[in-house]
Amino acid sequence: MQLRIPGPTPCPPESLQAQGKQMINHRGEEFSSLLNSITDKMKKVFQTKEDVLLLTCSGTGGMEAAIVNTLSPGDKVLSTSVGVFGDRFAEIASQYGANVVRLGGEWGKPVDLEALKKALKADNSITAILTTHNETSTGITNDIKEISTLAGEFDKLLLVDSVSGLSCIDLPVDEWQCDVVISASQKGWMVPPGLAMVSVNEKAWQAYAKAKMPRYYMDFGKAKDYLEKGQNPWTPAISLCYSLDATLDLILKEGLKNVFARHARVAQIARDGIKSLGLSLFAQEDHASNTVTAVKPPDNIDVTGLIKLLREEHGVILAGGQKNLSGKIFRIGHLGMVYEKDIEEVIEALDKALSKVKS
Amino acid sequence: MQLRIPGPTPCPPESLQAQGKQMINHRGEEFSSLLNSITDKMKKVFQTKEDVLLLTCSGTGGMEAAIVNTLSPGDKVLSTSVGVFGDRFAEIASQYGANVVRLGGEWGKPVDLEALKKALKADNSITAILTTHNETSTGITNDIKEISTLAGEFDKLLLVDSVSGLSCIDLPVDEWQCDVVISASQKGWMVPPGLAMVSVNEKAWQAYAKAKMPRYYMDFGKAKDYLEKGQNPWTPAISLCYSLDATLDLILKEGLKNVFARHARVAQIARDGIKSLGLSLFAQEDHASNTVTAVKPPDNIDVTGLIKLLREEHGVILAGGQKNLSGKIFRIGHLGMVYEKDIEEVIEALDKALSKVKS
Repeated sequence: MQLRIPGPTPCPPESLQAQGKQMINHRGEEFSSLLNSITDKMKKVFQTKEDVLLLTCSGTGGMEAAIVNTLSPGDKVLSTSVGVFGDRFAEIASQYGANVVRLGGEWGKPVDLEALKKALKADNSITAILTTHNETSTGITNDIKEISTLAGEFDKLLLVDSVSGLSCIDLPVDEWQCDVVISASQKGWMVPPGLAMVSVNEKAWQAYAKAKMPRYYMDFGKAKDYLEKGQNPWTPAISLCYSLDATLDLILKEGLKNVFARHARVAQIARDGIKSLGLSLFAQEDHASNTVTAVKPPDNIDVTGLIKLLREEHGVILAGGQKNLSGKIFRIGHLGMVYEKDIEEVIEALDKALSKVKS
Repeated sequence: MQLRIPGPTPCPPESLQAQGKQMINHRGEEFSSLLNSITDKMKKVFQTKEDVLLLTCSGTGGMEAAIVNTLSPGDKVLSTSVGVFGDRFAEIASQYGANVVRLGGEWGKPVDLEALKKALKADNSITAILTTHNETSTGITNDIKEISTLAGEFDKLLLVDSVSGLSCIDLPVDEWQCDVVISASQKGWMVPPGLAMVSVNEKAWQAYAKAKMPRYYMDFGKAKDYLEKGQNPWTPAISLCYSLDATLDLILKEGLKNVFARHARVAQIARDGIKSLGLSLFAQEDHASNTVTAVKPPDNIDVTGLIKLLREEHGVILAGGQKNLSGKIFRIGHLGMVYEKDIEEVIEALDKALSKVKS
């Protein structure tokens, strides 16, 4: 089977096997060493010297944590959404009482930097910017460096959903001054789902000190206090920690630059392959993601049927479109444990399946 | 190693090995079969025909979910806390704006049913009762049947933390009309931590329809909608689902009654053993828990030193006391994969360690 959805991603044997170790005391020395080891290595991948917290939840839980720990009900926040996950980030903020202003981006395009600048200039009551590093639903990677520069210029807090970006696409968190960045285990980290990792810098901690949205399980302050003792406030997902410790070694051994370069190469093969089959990329190509490729087939192709055929006859599992894009696009995930050959096989299978669907 | 803390508990080989299966599409048919299988089997353990939802979080996350899905800020709720986890339940409710009234129980004793009745009679503005089936911090099992009868009599919503009780101690959720019951994977379920399971009955759904506390990741309605498609709203902890599916088979194969009887036998061995060593039980014995035994050694014994000695020289890992009980008691976990011989070994090790600590 070729599981090529944008997460959960296939796990390497080191990751799967590490999970099999017996349980330990989550308040004992052995877990403390494990958590400290993971935290130190995660900081390297986040390229940060600030705090990185590990939460037992999915990426969406991590996004919720970013919001409830830094904002107060009534805060005006600017959503730069250009897809399903950007919308989700905004929806979480609304749910907790934030006053969400939407920039109104187009799906398949990156965040419009000029529009963002204009919006920030027009309204200085905005507190924070919600943005998406890698929009999984459309296959777009946004210009986080430029978005962050604008956030800095207008002194706004910047919350970055990089659930499907970080560890695959360069995001130097400190250098680009991203205040909170969220990722999740089942993406580039090559670990089964269940862990979210969140970086929190000094500016975010200042926001935390004033933030009034209710929180308990997701509380950053509790997570930081316990991390100082080498613990989580609640019982952490120990088997997933074993796995993450192992995959962090794989990532750091390969080297971050090499990991980013591999994702770039594989993504290029995906995009070239798609075009060679006469299909269109859904995402604006100069901002096409290196972790997920969204494909817009001609209208006469039954996308759901194509995905079914690929799964049943070729053992290739792709993702469909989400929300408004359901039945209109399909998506190839190429993040984490993925090599040139994997995507070449996907393109070959797609070629065969397309000929059957067309005929 | 004998890991005898009240969770995480040792996992049987079936549980550890099941985790090692490769990832699958969480929106595909295979996951849907898995989730349906787990849900059907969980309902048997909860002894309910109502909904049982699976959340990716710890037990504390499940407790938070119970509160934010059924209550509104300003709601007056009665906390029956008799320990750390009862206090935690109350604290979560306060955090989200509930007006928490505390019954003021004594640690080491069960909930005082007379006091509960009086409190409910005295104040009909109370909306809900927060209670703890099995108070892990003190080793007490409360009379949920009687508490539930009172909740019914006064028409209050009953939220039951059974994180360390369910699947080990009889709790017929439907028969006893418990509106929301929370458990967690790393306890009697013999699965690594990371999953919470929550039953929600019709009365709880009525409360949900009116509840105004903010929620997103933990939303019961979303969980139920997706469950109807055999999915979770967010990416679930797939490897832990594999494990849970396997351990549910073990539990159901042994038979619920046999599982409860085994926990009762093992707990009796623990209590008898403790008394045979001249130590005192912290919990009132007629309500002593069948999953965790709290022990109050004489004041001249250094509890922290004793726990360290047991770990380092005897390979037995016990838990200390929490909060006010830190350094004053120790706790033996006997839930999940635990048999007579395991606790006999713990008592033997304790006997040897005590003689060293005393001398």
